[in-house]
Amino acid sequence: MEERRERADAARNRQAILRAAEELLRRHPPEQVSIERVAAEAGVGKGTVFHRFGSRTGLMRELMNERARELEQAVAEGPPPLGPGAPPAERLVAFLAEVAALAARNGNLLAAHEHAVLTSKSPEPRESHPIYLSWHRHVTALIAEGRPDVDAGLIAHMLLGVLHMEPVASSLRAGAHERLAASYADLVRGLLGGSAGRG
Amino acid sequence: MEERRERADAARNRQAILRAAEELLRRHPPEQVSIERVAAEAGVGKGTVFHRFGSRTGLMRELMNERARELEQAVAEGPPPLGPGAPPAERLVAFLAEVAALAARNGNLLAAHEHAVLTSKSPEPRESHPIYLSWHRHVTALIAEGRPDVDAGLIAHMLLGVLHMEPVASSLRAGAHERLAASYADLVRGLLGGSAGRG
Repeated sequence: MEERRERADAARNRQAILRAAEELLRRHPPEQVSIERVAAEAGVGKGTVFHRFGSRTGLMRELMNERARELEQAVAEGPPPLGPGAPPAERLVAFLAEVAALAARNGNLLAAHEHAVLTSKSPEPRESHPIYLSWHRHVTALIAEGRPDVDAGLIAHMLLGVLHMEPVASSLRAGAHERLAASYADLVRGLLGGSAGRG
Repeated sequence: MEERRERADAARNRQAILRAAEELLRRHPPEQVSIERVAAEAGVGKGTVFHRFGSRTGLMRELMNERARELEQAVAEGPPPLGPGAPPAERLVAFLAEVAALAARNGNLLAAHEHAVLTSKSPEPRESHPIYLSWHRHVTALIAEGRPDVDAGLIAHMLLGVLHMEPVASSLRAGAHERLAASYADLVRGLLGGSAGRG
């Protein structure tokens, strides 16, 4: 009984910490989001945050991974058009809208990660990151399904790379993900065909 | 007579220096392309290079600007499809192929510039550079002409940004500009319509 309650407490704490970090990152540049601040916002001790996530970097990474896992699950077994069952164009439009929203919500986090990568001595390329690889695989498969004649892998890199690129990245941090999602939709429906005709 | 010959010599030297720098940058990483090496390759004295271009950075900037001017001229008054007279889709396909080729030819130069910008204390954003602005204006106008219903300015940023983005940028440096041009063409013809139908 006692043990089960402890496990439930731990899971609740973990969620509270991740939500607090996400909320703080929405409002503040990442260098101002300290472990102390996250702990205070989540209503837990600083030691609890370190115990659960190891470090500030560990917390940031886990936040990004959790968002990515939710999206992956929705793609694999959620309802269409994000999940299976819709035509490839509509699945891709839905997926890129989710990715744009995720990037907007976690823009400060992405920017911090990006800056760390670009200025590090031995940068790990973005395109070898497991989340990027999984997104690239999904986008490539949908393009190839709709247009077997094109270079799906390269076009997938072109579409996903946009997220990391100025001035798109800074407009995403300012919350313009619906504008980006609409332009993704125009490009994707043009390439793959789809329900929305030309204007 | 004497003065005219001097001006002709100066123009020849200037061209020889730019060609030498371009040739060296094609074969070597930019940090290995010194003024001394460029001067030796061009068959002029080191002082002549400094006299004409002020500094190594000045030489690199002038090389990029010259390429951009040639392209701008071809767009403004050259034969179609790059120049006026072709449908917007075909003009845009031709323009992006030129831009991809230019980026591939000057990939080491672009990478050096990019790295300098990203690691500088007060980076000048890429999208405020005169060359970028001029390319963005042209791409935006062609998209708007073919598809008045889409967000032409944002899609132009999406298409042009790809050039600076890994893994596309590194494949360009390896000479894969025709592959990129083909994918640009697929995206553009999808968006704007055009002579090449779906496969």
